Amino acid sequence: MSDLLSEKTPIRARHIRPGQGQAVEVKTGQLLQIQTLQGKQVADFVAFTQGDTDEFLSTSVTRASNANIVPQSGMTLYSNRRQPMFEIVEDTVGRHDMLYACCDPVRYETLGAPGHANCREALAEALAGYGLGYDRIPSPINWFMNVAILARGELEIREPLAEKNDYVVLRALKDVVAGVSACPQDLVPTNGSNPTDLAVRVYRDAPLPPPPVMEAAPVPTNDTAAATAPILASKPGPRPAKLQSTAEATVYRVGRVDSGEAS
Amino acid sequence: MSDLLSEKTPIRARHIRPGQGQAVEVKTGQLLQIQTLQGKQVADFVAFTQGDTDEFLSTSVTRASNANIVPQSGMTLYSNRRQPMFEIVEDTVGRHDMLYACCDPVRYETLGAPGHANCREALAEALAGYGLGYDRIPSPINWFMNVAILARGELEIREPLAEKNDYVVLRALKDVVAGVSACPQDLVPTNGSNPTDLAVRVYRDAPLPPPPVMEAAPVPTNDTAAATAPILASKPGPRPAKLQSTAEATVYRVGRVDSGEAS
Repeated sequence: MSDLLSEKTPIRARHIRPGQGQAVEVKTGQLLQIQTLQGKQVADFVAFTQGDTDEFLSTSVTRASNANIVPQSGMTLYSNRRQPMFEIVEDTVGRHDMLYACCDPVRYETLGAPGHANCREALAEALAGYGLGYDRIPSPINWFMNVAILARGELEIREPLAEKNDYVVLRALKDVVAGVSACPQDLVPTNGSNPTDLAVRVYRDAPLPPPPVMEAAPVPTNDTAAATAPILASKPGPRPAKLQSTAEATVYRVGRVDSGEAS
Repeated sequence: MSDLLSEKTPIRARHIRPGQGQAVEVKTGQLLQIQTLQGKQVADFVAFTQGDTDEFLSTSVTRASNANIVPQSGMTLYSNRRQPMFEIVEDTVGRHDMLYACCDPVRYETLGAPGHANCREALAEALAGYGLGYDRIPSPINWFMNVAILARGELEIREPLAEKNDYVVLRALKDVVAGVSACPQDLVPTNGSNPTDLAVRVYRDAPLPPPPVMEAAPVPTNDTAAATAPILASKPGPRPAKLQSTAEATVYRVGRVDSGEAS
């Protein structure tokens, strides 16, 4: 089996419907891909060290250690013990959130929808086999969630920029158990007001194939992010150059995503 | 004892030196004051529900529920179960952080100072009597910490804007045990490169005294925050009107602090 084939054949795969959560074990060096199958779907993501779940992915340590609030390609994600847990090795979008808590029952009560499916309970249920309950679900990374930060620190939830089959790939730097939920939020624009399915796949680590023919970078057409003004409210730069296409996905190879002009 | 006298006489007080942590119990309705005695000193702050420490102050729920990343007067602080824990009832500064993790041993190893005093261990030690260890210290609110957020999400630690005797007052909305540490960081500008002492006091809830003679608002003179540009990098507006002065502190009565022009 070639490295390339191993890259293309996941050793583990999960399909996640809105409101569902899944636990996925990932060993050191393996690659974890999280993909929005229809686009505009947020994946709430938490992770714990296998066999020592008091250590978990910490968004505050990750923000502090990277001196940045936006998860982006090349970034290392840290645990609450400030140990590296993941590296973001590919990202076809460049706009994600690590500020928001999971949606939960109280959130939906406030929105007039008691009993609504929610990420917090979905993740707790998915991770129950690891001894992790509702209170131990940490602050998540929300892949594909598009949160604008306005001039006085106000947060505004906007439609994700992620299109059909966009994804992120993480390399595990520890043996971890990850929890992923497809956010069922349909009352605000978190998921483009229409929650859809996610795919999660685990691959053996392998060198990525060399770039074949580089094509010109297409310009994004989504205008919804351009509204008011400042930080993280601007459109991201041109999409990364296309690397390869498969039946399943258009694959972009990205470096550090340039998210627009400094203001 | 008049309401006013009760307001002036704390029922519990702690003096905290840099690198120390203290646990303070606060009952529902009581007021918790955290004060920088020399100015420019950060107070790392965590809190747990008394008798049920699986519930704790959550910065991610607080950000989400307020749709804002900056703690400010009038804001409610929420637990990981999305229950109100505190209300910020006074704030003489208007610039605090709820993005950064506590400093910890690994942080100082990275800075070439292994074994340096740190907030994480100080809080764990202070809260050990409540069964809370190192791994259970949550993401803190960092009172008086001045973090600029630049255009692409970069975070930049700057000198606190807090001057001598500036403070915040929180009203407890639950019976809580709070942990407060005086950050000993002296290698970056977190504490103006010179960590100093904090005071923490608990007061019975009581109406604040009516404003006596209102004086003109002094204009802030600190220029260090004006540097590069965008969000949360601007100077806050004029200081709130002076309310009263005591031998111990100059007291400002603030409403919602206006933190500068929208960009």
